[in-house]
Amino acid sequence: MSRLVFKRFSSTITIKSTPSKAHHHQPIPSSSFPSGFILTGLHAGVKKKAGVLDVGVILSTSERPTSAAACFTRNAFKAAPVIISEQILGENAGRARAVVVNSGCANAVTGAQGIEDAWAMAKETDALLPQNSSSQHSTTSQTLVLSTGVIGQNLPISKILSAIRSQRDEKQQTLGNDFGSWERAAKAFMTTDTFPKLRARRFSINGVEYRMAGMDKGAGMIHPDMGPPALGPLHATLLGCIMTDAAISPRSLQRALTYAVERSFNSISVDGDMSTNDTILLLANGAAAEKNGVRLEEIDEETDKEAFEVFKKELTDFTVDLAKLVVRDGEGATKFVTVTVKGAPTYEDAHRVASRISTSALVKTALYGEDANWGRVLAATGSVPLSSPLHPNKVSVTFMPSDGTTPLPVLVNGEPEKVDEKRASEILSLEDFEILVDLGGGEGAEAAQYWTCDFSYEYVRINGDYRS
Amino acid sequence: MSRLVFKRFSSTITIKSTPSKAHHHQPIPSSSFPSGFILTGLHAGVKKKAGVLDVGVILSTSERPTSAAACFTRNAFKAAPVIISEQILGENAGRARAVVVNSGCANAVTGAQGIEDAWAMAKETDALLPQNSSSQHSTTSQTLVLSTGVIGQNLPISKILSAIRSQRDEKQQTLGNDFGSWERAAKAFMTTDTFPKLRARRFSINGVEYRMAGMDKGAGMIHPDMGPPALGPLHATLLGCIMTDAAISPRSLQRALTYAVERSFNSISVDGDMSTNDTILLLANGAAAEKNGVRLEEIDEETDKEAFEVFKKELTDFTVDLAKLVVRDGEGATKFVTVTVKGAPTYEDAHRVASRISTSALVKTALYGEDANWGRVLAATGSVPLSSPLHPNKVSVTFMPSDGTTPLPVLVNGEPEKVDEKRASEILSLEDFEILVDLGGGEGAEAAQYWTCDFSYEYVRINGDYRS
Repeated sequence: MSRLVFKRFSSTITIKSTPSKAHHHQPIPSSSFPSGFILTGLHAGVKKKAGVLDVGVILSTSERPTSAAACFTRNAFKAAPVIISEQILGENAGRARAVVVNSGCANAVTGAQGIEDAWAMAKETDALLPQNSSSQHSTTSQTLVLSTGVIGQNLPISKILSAIRSQRDEKQQTLGNDFGSWERAAKAFMTTDTFPKLRARRFSINGVEYRMAGMDKGAGMIHPDMGPPALGPLHATLLGCIMTDAAISPRSLQRALTYAVERSFNSISVDGDMSTNDTILLLANGAAAEKNGVRLEEIDEETDKEAFEVFKKELTDFTVDLAKLVVRDGEGATKFVTVTVKGAPTYEDAHRVASRISTSALVKTALYGEDANWGRVLAATGSVPLSSPLHPNKVSVTFMPSDGTTPLPVLVNGEPEKVDEKRASEILSLEDFEILVDLGGGEGAEAAQYWTCDFSYEYVRINGDYRS
Repeated sequence: MSRLVFKRFSSTITIKSTPSKAHHHQPIPSSSFPSGFILTGLHAGVKKKAGVLDVGVILSTSERPTSAAACFTRNAFKAAPVIISEQILGENAGRARAVVVNSGCANAVTGAQGIEDAWAMAKETDALLPQNSSSQHSTTSQTLVLSTGVIGQNLPISKILSAIRSQRDEKQQTLGNDFGSWERAAKAFMTTDTFPKLRARRFSINGVEYRMAGMDKGAGMIHPDMGPPALGPLHATLLGCIMTDAAISPRSLQRALTYAVERSFNSISVDGDMSTNDTILLLANGAAAEKNGVRLEEIDEETDKEAFEVFKKELTDFTVDLAKLVVRDGEGATKFVTVTVKGAPTYEDAHRVASRISTSALVKTALYGEDANWGRVLAATGSVPLSSPLHPNKVSVTFMPSDGTTPLPVLVNGEPEKVDEKRASEILSLEDFEILVDLGGGEGAEAAQYWTCDFSYEYVRINGDYRS
């Protein structure tokens, strides 16, 4: 890791450069992507720089109905795309066949014009859906809309519509299901992200193989708290979209997503700020739900609990992978830190403590400074009111290296250890490590995990000067 | 404000220097300080640098009983000085005559040794109290203890005790009641503070003139949430000590302090982190409570409500002054920003929204960048669940300059204004300004204020490298 040093009055500021994260984006074999989806990424001109992808289109081409589920920000200032996507999902009883996304402008706090623009994006994308494949009818739209970028500015809507319309023209059409197509769509999500976030996975249910793939984006205003549609006020700009060729009922799809999001996207923090646009979408088109030439029924929790549980677990693991990528690429981040809290009275207590540690400016600057300042971890821990009182003399804190070497206890049952500072430095100089806080609840106590990054000069630079 | 610029890869980082704050510390006429208190600041060697004051002693020499009140951190990991001060105050039924403070080491998470050390500091200070003046008896101690600094290290206790003991020796004694003595005591509180925080004020109750003076310190781990003794778990390292020569009953003194702290110290944020040591102490020694040569009874809310209300108001105004000084000198701060939230369903709602805006890393980096990014203010506002739902189309945001020039509305009833960016820059380049958020509740709605600062490169530098 290179360092740049300069003099500032009598003090010297050392600027650590943010490590390159490009290696977290690697080619994926096209056979790993789910069947029955075509995608692309386009340059519409929302972002000024020529050729930069800023509009993405995702279509389900499956002949079967496509189930859709979503978790939306609980922020009271929901952006226009959030408002209309929630409405479409409600009116279509959990069905949708397409997703359109733009980056560069959040279409948030844009009044009546914003709502009109979001509807126009949905309608224009509807027109790309294969007519013959549609067994779904909708008086509204079959397209869910995502936007991310600056708040309070109107979309350059004609540019966006014309980019979407270009896909009706065979000569300009770039929709496809190979790696390049998925990658272009993932790139269209990006704002301050330094690499596109795209992952795929295979899994089996009842002897049938399915695939799941998806993309997401960060990299700031990341502290999501998302709930299922119409759950009331929440927050963050995290966007994500997951596609699978499994067949699953809308109700069960939503239940699985709500569970998975709580344990993944709602357990990450870059800066503790929640957005007006946070949205995670999940489409299941059933394109691979066939055995011995016979179409399989949609999986439903009530009729096949076991199959549902397998799906829920696969989805949760996948959303954790995608969520971690956002933290890995957090604005200015040089560290990827797992915060594990165990021995708590309840899961919610453990989650709240992990969240507080993960958002503490003092903890995060110490991580950047590679300083084993466990006192700050403890102060953050102690500041959270729990459902039953914390016993300071039962609390332990351990720094866990990611390279398999010996963990370093810094506090054991409330008593500070004589810390080997050299060993502490070794662990804290790693890019990945874990802070383990045991609240001492013992057997039967609850645990939760959070993923966070450090607070660097680069974070201040990016956000002190975002709009200009 | 000077700027230093250097190249980092292809991007340029502009480092704004933190403006000097030395002018916020000015001499105060000795006649402004309350009667019956003597103070000093000493170099014990907790801090390595020769001559730096790190132990302060404050004694009440009044012949009347001295009432004492306190608000302590609600952090579950209460530091040893917090634990014993709370105990002493309880055992003495709200009476105490002395305060001893050290900076450089927080004596927090230091186990049984820490408790023993805190007791030793109290006992050693007791020995300095004038024997003849004491009409108070205590089986424990008459001294309240404050510590601030690094967590998890033991105090160099013999150095501290020997510094306190030096004040028994007439030749070495530096205790006094002039400006220099008060200033030395204020300096002994300092950690990352850039100037000592000392203020005094005069006020009258029932035709008698009283004086009040006090000091406090920040400058990081500042987001206090303090309650009266034994109120249960809270947080921050803010220390403050206020002395008055009014006579007021322990019960009423505590009630006034609890009210004042909620509207002052519990309404400031530097970094959103709460400490294990936060303490505000208030001593009232009655030394000036005399009219026509007759000693006045202690003011009590039940017997003289009007006098109590005057005292409470004076105290609240004074604590607001002291609290603002902490924000003014926040670690790396270049801005002093008042966040006012009005039109809220309840005071608690208004306070929570103001707190969230004041702690948002995105808002604070935008303040540093002098960027009128009201979208971030709005996202923070919308992320707070209120006691009744927020109506986005009733919310307005205005930037208020401190120089008396025209305010700049950026959002009116949920609709963005066409913002004059030049005018926005003018306001945001001021050192002081206000962000006014009107939630639109209209008549009878509640308001709250918070004071915060910006998030700078200097903050990261200070906290990425605190212990070394």
